[in-house]
Amino acid sequence: MPPDVAPSMIARIVPVDACAGERARAYLDTLTKPPGSLGKLEALAVQLSSITGELMPRVTPPGVLVFAADHGVAAEGVSAFPQAVTAQMVANFASGGAAINVFARQIDAHVEIVDVGVASNLTMHGVTHAKVRQGTANMALENAMQPEEAQAAIEVGVAAVERARQAGAKCLIVGEMGIANTTASSAMLAVLAGTPVAQAVGAGTGINSVQQAHKVAVIERAIQARQADPDDPLDVLAKLGGLEIAAMVGAYLAAAVHRLPAVVDGFIATVAALVACRLCPAVRGYLVFGHRSEEPGHATALEALDAQPLLALGMRLGEGSGAALAFPLLQAAAGMLNEMATFADAGVSDNNSQ
Amino acid sequence: MPPDVAPSMIARIVPVDACAGERARAYLDTLTKPPGSLGKLEALAVQLSSITGELMPRVTPPGVLVFAADHGVAAEGVSAFPQAVTAQMVANFASGGAAINVFARQIDAHVEIVDVGVASNLTMHGVTHAKVRQGTANMALENAMQPEEAQAAIEVGVAAVERARQAGAKCLIVGEMGIANTTASSAMLAVLAGTPVAQAVGAGTGINSVQQAHKVAVIERAIQARQADPDDPLDVLAKLGGLEIAAMVGAYLAAAVHRLPAVVDGFIATVAALVACRLCPAVRGYLVFGHRSEEPGHATALEALDAQPLLALGMRLGEGSGAALAFPLLQAAAGMLNEMATFADAGVSDNNSQ
Repeated sequence: MPPDVAPSMIARIVPVDACAGERARAYLDTLTKPPGSLGKLEALAVQLSSITGELMPRVTPPGVLVFAADHGVAAEGVSAFPQAVTAQMVANFASGGAAINVFARQIDAHVEIVDVGVASNLTMHGVTHAKVRQGTANMALENAMQPEEAQAAIEVGVAAVERARQAGAKCLIVGEMGIANTTASSAMLAVLAGTPVAQAVGAGTGINSVQQAHKVAVIERAIQARQADPDDPLDVLAKLGGLEIAAMVGAYLAAAVHRLPAVVDGFIATVAALVACRLCPAVRGYLVFGHRSEEPGHATALEALDAQPLLALGMRLGEGSGAALAFPLLQAAAGMLNEMATFADAGVSDNNSQ
Repeated sequence: MPPDVAPSMIARIVPVDACAGERARAYLDTLTKPPGSLGKLEALAVQLSSITGELMPRVTPPGVLVFAADHGVAAEGVSAFPQAVTAQMVANFASGGAAINVFARQIDAHVEIVDVGVASNLTMHGVTHAKVRQGTANMALENAMQPEEAQAAIEVGVAAVERARQAGAKCLIVGEMGIANTTASSAMLAVLAGTPVAQAVGAGTGINSVQQAHKVAVIERAIQARQADPDDPLDVLAKLGGLEIAAMVGAYLAAAVHRLPAVVDGFIATVAALVACRLCPAVRGYLVFGHRSEEPGHATALEALDAQPLLALGMRLGEGSGAALAFPLLQAAAGMLNEMATFADAGVSDNNSQ
């Protein structure tokens, strides 16, 4: 592991507070509902208590961070959309017209758009300019990034969490935009999870089966050429990853440092979460998985993290959209602990009083 | 079918507007996201357009209606909780301490609690007093209701929707409270869907397997004795149903009359929805299914309506809680149509411009 940001962050991460979680579990059974009747929402409430250490956790306001970057491998024709779309969508985020903007407004979340590596000069307002380089190199031909560049991108993610936290965010929703970033994520996942590439590859934003076979071949060639060490997640990230993916790794590490729940979005986000958890397994406890993506590699990535997402709506957009849609469930879980009456307070007979 | 409320309502129900739905479907593909990438949320947006007839449907503010009533069959010892809990929970709703109150506050919904048949004299504020009778009769011994009582309870539901609509509600979330109402619902479902009773019966609020076998036996005895006509949903409702279930039937019919989306909650709500759809198949298009309950009969009831709920969180509470938790997804679907930029507006290349 390079000597920079990751070790200093990791040293500050403590496991979630299991005792606080147990107190929440016991308290839930005193609330005016049959024990266990709120299902996964109760497990989520317990997790929020274990993350924050509080019986009455707060998750509002949430903060949305969207990291954008380009991928040199787009030159291999692996995506349904041209590379220029990354910058165009950053402009769309900045003017509030994308899906994540709509869903963020609905949950009263501030959205910060971070250019960590878009392959053109962006100067628009409403974007944090933190470009590490103008897109990664084409991993089919050379390492996507130098280790120092991956570290710098991780630091961009850490710094964004710091800003969100100082602005009052109690929960982080982390998204991404980057044409060809399912290609990078599939390559990383195949190496990290040891699965065949074909099993980690899907249609992305909408390629057909011929293009998908080409995508598999490009990834197989890149994996063969780069020889990333599966036991060194930062090596995998630098050689096959992306700048926005590295920033997300930093964001998850920083969320854990600050004991903030982080809602993980779809496939790309989950691969970034896998890197963060390989770097520091204690991060896992701070992650809530928002939705199950249609992208086939997502199932493998979730399995590697023993994760069950809250939603399964057949989505495959990214941007943090699935995480933002799941946020009201975190709010409901926290609200249950904070606001529901107990059997005793409400004068309701429990099921032992028959 | 009795001559009262149902036929006059049914005559006013028109099928959802498939053309408006098709316009929404085409418009969705012009928005800045890969076509189809928002999965079931896109299908939901299309449904909301077909319900309202508008390309830009509105679902806020939602209105929550919770109908409460008691069940004579509780005397057979079919529930984990004593009958007094129905009235106690009504008081808890009125003072804002139940799960549905918490979830309704989160979505800025007004909650109306309607006593349509609690088995005691309730006088508290914050409750609409519309009692048809003090609980149903014990269906193991006699018909749960007279046909006129079922009709009166349906009218209570219709009137509640009318009030919600006049207060501005653009979407209805309908819930219930009634100790032993899974017993009534299981009996109704077994007759309406022609399934074995054991397949329609679950733990309710938390009985064990011995108590569950007793519940099956009670229901089998009631079905045998009551001889409800499976082809006459109002006969099934009156002989085996409940006053709150009848009110929910009225609420779904009224939602369809007024072209308002209604979010269906769990098992009991879905059985009420099945009655409404058997009375008038066009009602089905106005219903959005909020969540998949743990109660085993729910799967059968959903199948009978060809319904796929939005959430599956292992919940089994009722009160409208699962429907309220699903509401933000309706808001997101409507928000997508109302607020997202098109490719043309945002200057984003679509996937044909490569």
